[in-house]
Amino acid sequence: MSAGKHVAIAGATGAVGVEMLQCLEERNFPLASLKLLASARSKGKKMTFRGEELTVEELTPDSFKGVDIALFSAGSGISREFGPHAVRAGAVVVDNSSAFRMEAGVPLVVPEINPEDAPGHQGIIANPNCTTIVALMALYSLHRAWTVRSIVASSYQAVSGTGQAGIEELAAQNRALVAGEPIVAKVYSRQIASNCLPEIGGVVANGYTSEEMKMQNEGRKILHQPDLKASVTCVRVPVFRSHSVSVTADFERKPSVEEARRLIGAAAGVQVMDEREANRFPTPLDCTGKDDCLVGRIREDLVFPQGLSLWVVGDQVRKGAALNAVQIAELL
Amino acid sequence: MSAGKHVAIAGATGAVGVEMLQCLEERNFPLASLKLLASARSKGKKMTFRGEELTVEELTPDSFKGVDIALFSAGSGISREFGPHAVRAGAVVVDNSSAFRMEAGVPLVVPEINPEDAPGHQGIIANPNCTTIVALMALYSLHRAWTVRSIVASSYQAVSGTGQAGIEELAAQNRALVAGEPIVAKVYSRQIASNCLPEIGGVVANGYTSEEMKMQNEGRKILHQPDLKASVTCVRVPVFRSHSVSVTADFERKPSVEEARRLIGAAAGVQVMDEREANRFPTPLDCTGKDDCLVGRIREDLVFPQGLSLWVVGDQVRKGAALNAVQIAELL
Repeated sequence: MSAGKHVAIAGATGAVGVEMLQCLEERNFPLASLKLLASARSKGKKMTFRGEELTVEELTPDSFKGVDIALFSAGSGISREFGPHAVRAGAVVVDNSSAFRMEAGVPLVVPEINPEDAPGHQGIIANPNCTTIVALMALYSLHRAWTVRSIVASSYQAVSGTGQAGIEELAAQNRALVAGEPIVAKVYSRQIASNCLPEIGGVVANGYTSEEMKMQNEGRKILHQPDLKASVTCVRVPVFRSHSVSVTADFERKPSVEEARRLIGAAAGVQVMDEREANRFPTPLDCTGKDDCLVGRIREDLVFPQGLSLWVVGDQVRKGAALNAVQIAELL
Repeated sequence: MSAGKHVAIAGATGAVGVEMLQCLEERNFPLASLKLLASARSKGKKMTFRGEELTVEELTPDSFKGVDIALFSAGSGISREFGPHAVRAGAVVVDNSSAFRMEAGVPLVVPEINPEDAPGHQGIIANPNCTTIVALMALYSLHRAWTVRSIVASSYQAVSGTGQAGIEELAAQNRALVAGEPIVAKVYSRQIASNCLPEIGGVVANGYTSEEMKMQNEGRKILHQPDLKASVTCVRVPVFRSHSVSVTADFERKPSVEEARRLIGAAAGVQVMDEREANRFPTPLDCTGKDDCLVGRIREDLVFPQGLSLWVVGDQVRKGAALNAVQIAELL
């Protein structure tokens, strides 16, 4: 490995961890060393990186000696437990969980939107929620032009958002469905194959789920827009990968569809796919494995006189998680 | 068959036609005779009704002699071609297609909402769009209490909305997906298995699809609310049956969640399924084969100060089509 940063991935064997490895490889991230960390169960597992075989080590409080950047993607509990050890060892933690996102002193960063927030960290930088990243990737250039004040959104979230276990559950249920066998639900409370589950993350006091509140809470922090309102409905759909979001946004100034298309087309990390005549619009399959989010169905809203409605799809494992974390690491 | 009406079903062999037969049977509809009509291709096919075997006849201009009520569910083209023949023969047409819905003199009826419109017909009564029925079933009692002025909605529509062909396409693609074989798309322009298609019905001039405009256009007519605004995004999801709709509604008077739950619980044709502690909310599987629409996730909206957000699921083949048509026939 060439001169560069000493990087560790905590949660290397999960769906996002595997993708982090791939993003580091594809983007030719300047590495001095790469350490793969996971639970005791995965210790000794081999993973390939740049043609070399790396051995997964058990994540312990002592794992971070000499590490410059620690990418965490093993859930909030692990981040809370081991993140502080990494910081004490001198590493900068880029955390994909929700553990520290709303804490003061923890920048919450989408590199195409608020890279300037990253240097203010005190050891931890948080990666936003996947659905929030995807929606804001579509909205940010429009926000700069017209200032978004409210968002009404409904999500169509893939099982990849639950990690490898979610992917395996949908695959197993699809097999049972095709074979006419009984369907077993373990990861989700109900059958996800041929179904939609309108609850992600558990309901909080105001009737929204924790997942739904993230777009308002995290959106305010990322956009530096403390009075942003977001009413969101998060729904798990039987799709393997890539999240879709139906977004209606109300702006402080009157937007135009023409200009919105131009702005999104010119923005980094997003592409317009909006072919009305051909009825060709972004779908999860179009986006899977891609870095960019795809935006279509851009139209004047019929309820908000200064609103636009649109449809955005992003690969949740990539831009919604692994890629965004690696991009944050690149800012360091 | 007992004394009652002479009924014909045009499109008896389709997904909705089959369900109409079942609704007539379950509801013990007073029939003097029942005639099953379909295209030449299905002529001679046998279908069972109340233990008797009925033979499908070919739909022709002369099919409606002596028929009192003709239930049409064979697409707009067939309704336009044969509906007038049925009316001339003295039948009342209950039409499930979009052919006549917006015509003056054609009542557009959801029996739980505007039964009083039915008697004003001039030979044709239209059955509303399935997604519109499902959304309005959730909203109607709230509308009576607080007057709905705007709706922002995103749909999660099952392939049953496309009829038997859509159901077969998803089943075939699921089999191919599980077997790792190439996926063939014929009915839909793109793969629907493990995907979401954000386009139903073709895009019209304002950037919305014809399907999306139905909630505003039909909603105005059904609710007698000519200034109702509805901004809708219609999405096909890989679910076999039952449509879900994420609905945000803004009212003229301040609503309350408590009262909304009470009103929906007391209304005909809808049930509240909103168990926050248990995270139990309506899913398409809960609703399939049921007459009632199920409503959950009822909460104060975060964008509209006088708004509510909710999630409603309805069996599109039943309440969204066949059942609603049979209920209209019962009004006659």
